[in-house]
Amino acid sequence: MELRSDMTVKLMKHNARDADVATAARVSTIGAESMEPGKPVEGLINYLMRDRHGSPFEHNSLTFYIEAPVMVAREFMRHRAGWSYNEESGRYRELQPVFYTPDHSRPLVQVGRPGAYLFEPGSPAQQRLVTREFRSAYLWAYEHYTLMLSRGIAREVARSVLPVGIYTSFYATCNARSLMHFLSLRTRDEKSAFPSFPQREIEMVAQAMENKFRTLMPITHEAFARNGRVAP
Amino acid sequence: MELRSDMTVKLMKHNARDADVATAARVSTIGAESMEPGKPVEGLINYLMRDRHGSPFEHNSLTFYIEAPVMVAREFMRHRAGWSYNEESGRYRELQPVFYTPDHSRPLVQVGRPGAYLFEPGSPAQQRLVTREFRSAYLWAYEHYTLMLSRGIAREVARSVLPVGIYTSFYATCNARSLMHFLSLRTRDEKSAFPSFPQREIEMVAQAMENKFRTLMPITHEAFARNGRVAP
Amino acid sequence: MELRSDMTVKLMKHNARDADVATAARVSTIGAESMEPGKPVEGLINYLMRDRHGSPFEHNSLTFYIEAPVMVAREFMRHRAGWSYNEESGRYRELQPVFYTPDHSRPLVQVGRPGAYLFEPGSPAQQRLVTREFRSAYLWAYEHYTLMLSRGIAREVARSVLPVGIYTSFYATCNARSLMHFLSLRTRDEKSAFPSFPQREIEMVAQAMENKFRTLMPITHEAFARNGRVAP
Amino acid sequence: MELRSDMTVKLMKHNARDADVATAARVSTIGAESMEPGKPVEGLINYLMRDRHGSPFEHNSLTFYIEAPVMVAREFMRHRAGWSYNEESGRYRELQPVFYTPDHSRPLVQVGRPGAYLFEPGSPAQQRLVTREFRSAYLWAYEHYTLMLSRGIAREVARSVLPVGIYTSFYATCNARSLMHFLSLRTRDEKSAFPSFPQREIEMVAQAMENKFRTLMPITHEAFARNGRVAP
Repeated sequence: MELRSDMTVKLMKHNARDADVATAARVSTIGAESMEPGKPVEGLINYLMRDRHGSPFEHNSLTFYIEAPVMVAREFMRHRAGWSYNEESGRYRELQPVFYTPDHSRPLVQVGRPGAYLFEPGSPAQQRLVTREFRSAYLWAYEHYTLMLSRGIAREVARSVLPVGIYTSFYATCNARSLMHFLSLRTRDEKSAFPSFPQREIEMVAQAMENKFRTLMPITHEAFARNGRVAP
Repeated sequence: MELRSDMTVKLMKHNARDADVATAARVSTIGAESMEPGKPVEGLINYLMRDRHGSPFEHNSLTFYIEAPVMVAREFMRHRAGWSYNEESGRYRELQPVFYTPDHSRPLVQVGRPGAYLFEPGSPAQQRLVTREFRSAYLWAYEHYTLMLSRGIAREVARSVLPVGIYTSFYATCNARSLMHFLSLRTRDEKSAFPSFPQREIEMVAQAMENKFRTLMPITHEAFARNGRVAP
Repeated sequence: MELRSDMTVKLMKHNARDADVATAARVSTIGAESMEPGKPVEGLINYLMRDRHGSPFEHNSLTFYIEAPVMVAREFMRHRAGWSYNEESGRYRELQPVFYTPDHSRPLVQVGRPGAYLFEPGSPAQQRLVTREFRSAYLWAYEHYTLMLSRGIAREVARSVLPVGIYTSFYATCNARSLMHFLSLRTRDEKSAFPSFPQREIEMVAQAMENKFRTLMPITHEAFARNGRVAP
Repeated sequence: MELRSDMTVKLMKHNARDADVATAARVSTIGAESMEPGKPVEGLINYLMRDRHGSPFEHNSLTFYIEAPVMVAREFMRHRAGWSYNEESGRYRELQPVFYTPDHSRPLVQVGRPGAYLFEPGSPAQQRLVTREFRSAYLWAYEHYTLMLSRGIAREVARSVLPVGIYTSFYATCNARSLMHFLSLRTRDEKSAFPSFPQREIEMVAQAMENKFRTLMPITHEAFARNGRVAP
């Protein structure tokens, strides 16, 4: 059994540059043919973001390979518009014993009221408790899973006992617009016009994706950050 | 702890009649205003289905309330186009100890090759094994969950140990077109033009939904069945 | 030939009440079954709108019948997510000579720069010019259309000469969330957090739709208006 | 004034290879990491197409630049799922006098009944008629447009008189799955499992897109053609 506290986020392929946003926007106004590649695009992209002209941010694509617990994949795949997914199948594969456990940076205790929860780290005793309980529960569940498999029970049946802390892997393809919408909801940021309260585990995935996005499309990302982190 | 083998599917509200399909189609050809309510619509609906004119089947809505294991909800919510969801939250609620266990009608043993699996019931010993292992695994997991809650651990953290066989509940809203697409993939039918191999548990949900659909829109359903169970 | 300056917006059917928003939201937190029908929902709906919990606003549907010029239908049908359409076909029907002409309330002159245009009414001479030119152009185009039809040319070919000011009719089905997104972009409102600059003709359609929406879902509409007219 | 009978279809950028389909599919079964780049993918792609596993065909993107008459753009943009658009704006730009006229290969006369129309070329007299009427109608309309512009009328108002045969330009981004769905409806093919009857003008665009697609993803295209030209 392997216990992990981190998420894997790899950018597998992409087709995403700031210049493409400008090209798509200009077809509306001065015609795509006349685009000058060298022309500065900062002002245009900032204007599009501010005035919520979203469609120019869709003509690109980013494909991520992600490893995260099932509970994170569940929240992730609620994002529908502009997202495509392929996930590891528990029907066709024997799932491997890799499970999520919080590290010391993960606050364990929730205070406040629904919709405005605050988190506190938790005492050393609580941290030890979580480590112990997670390990014990995961071991027990996986033993039951493998026992059933060894007795000929179908994978799709036996997996019922596996916990939502087990890691899964999936491909997720999006465009800059659908990615910014995802980031606006799945990261916490003081400068956001609409504060969100994502679960820490999906935020870890989102932050890693945002880092890739910032590198690929720095001007678009800067405009996103400057305009309240609201997707156009 | 409660063990269930069934799925709950309730039609909460709807706005779906065969006549609406005809009304929407006729706006294309003879004008919506001139629609004659009493005119037979069988021929028109069958023609639309056969020639894959899908959009007239979208001007309606069906809202279902569903209780099913998390593993079923996971597959369900991969359906994006024309679907809306709201699901019970493991972040905001303490999840209740209701778990899925197969009954005697559920084949437990898989034979054949990927993509064309066949199932066999399993021996009495295998059936006893599954019942015993499921119960044991569920009890153990839920005890760990409640222990962590009692020590102040946040629900969203503690839930990591809960199995995908735990029941969740959700609202799902669709239209006749998106529902037929779902049914074509999540039911098994010899008359289907494109055979599917859904997991039995989601098929149970799909069949209950199909029964509601057949009652509400009998002519549309009949045309769907007659034309290879392919969504238009 | 008929000249019109107005838009037709009829609510053909609907399945949309404020209470449904609350019901869908509560499945996340206190369980759908325990919903109390009489409980006030204002606070809950306002909270959902403010914190951008959009999915509870999707479990409903509104079907509109709309008559508007082709140029309006073109802008309208760019709205994809959560929208379904069926439109009168120029391939299957002979299109009728009904055309759009601005009335006196429609400003005719544009000043300012792209993205921040202002409009002025136009002089009496300009108003007479538009009336005269529109009528002349429409008459000429429609005569060419009917001449070609009378000589056996296919409708789908002959229609090439018809202007985008000709009226078309279509069904549009949406839910409260997709409708609010449409309204945020297709109406101009000083209280909007993100000002839009829609063409006046589509705004006329949007305003009529907003009136129907306000009547059906007054609490949702009030929360939309109060929170910057941003769709959740 | 320029009269054109052709469509412009340029592949502006892309991120689409057959190998990507296989990579996405394999994450479900043997893990993305273990993919062998050199392994033949024909069998896998054909299996995915035949059994309608659609999602692996979504992890790629193709961006087209298209010039076509407004009536074609209207039909094109009815495709919603998996499509993104940016179009030349008649509000921000003065539209240029480029119009569509059928060439000799375009059948002008429609016989048969709705849903199963046949076309015949038309007599030389009919061909001369169409050429003459189109030219006359377009000239007249454009003269009225420019006259109004010269008198200070806003572009978004004056354009009402422009015909749907005027050329527009737009960017369209899709993935292989949404493209195949488009092709299945917008091309006519005897080997298709579900025959379609697209208007010839949009079919010209679709055929040019299919040529690009076949070059980029020959194995996927071959599987599409072999399996009844039905999108998975």
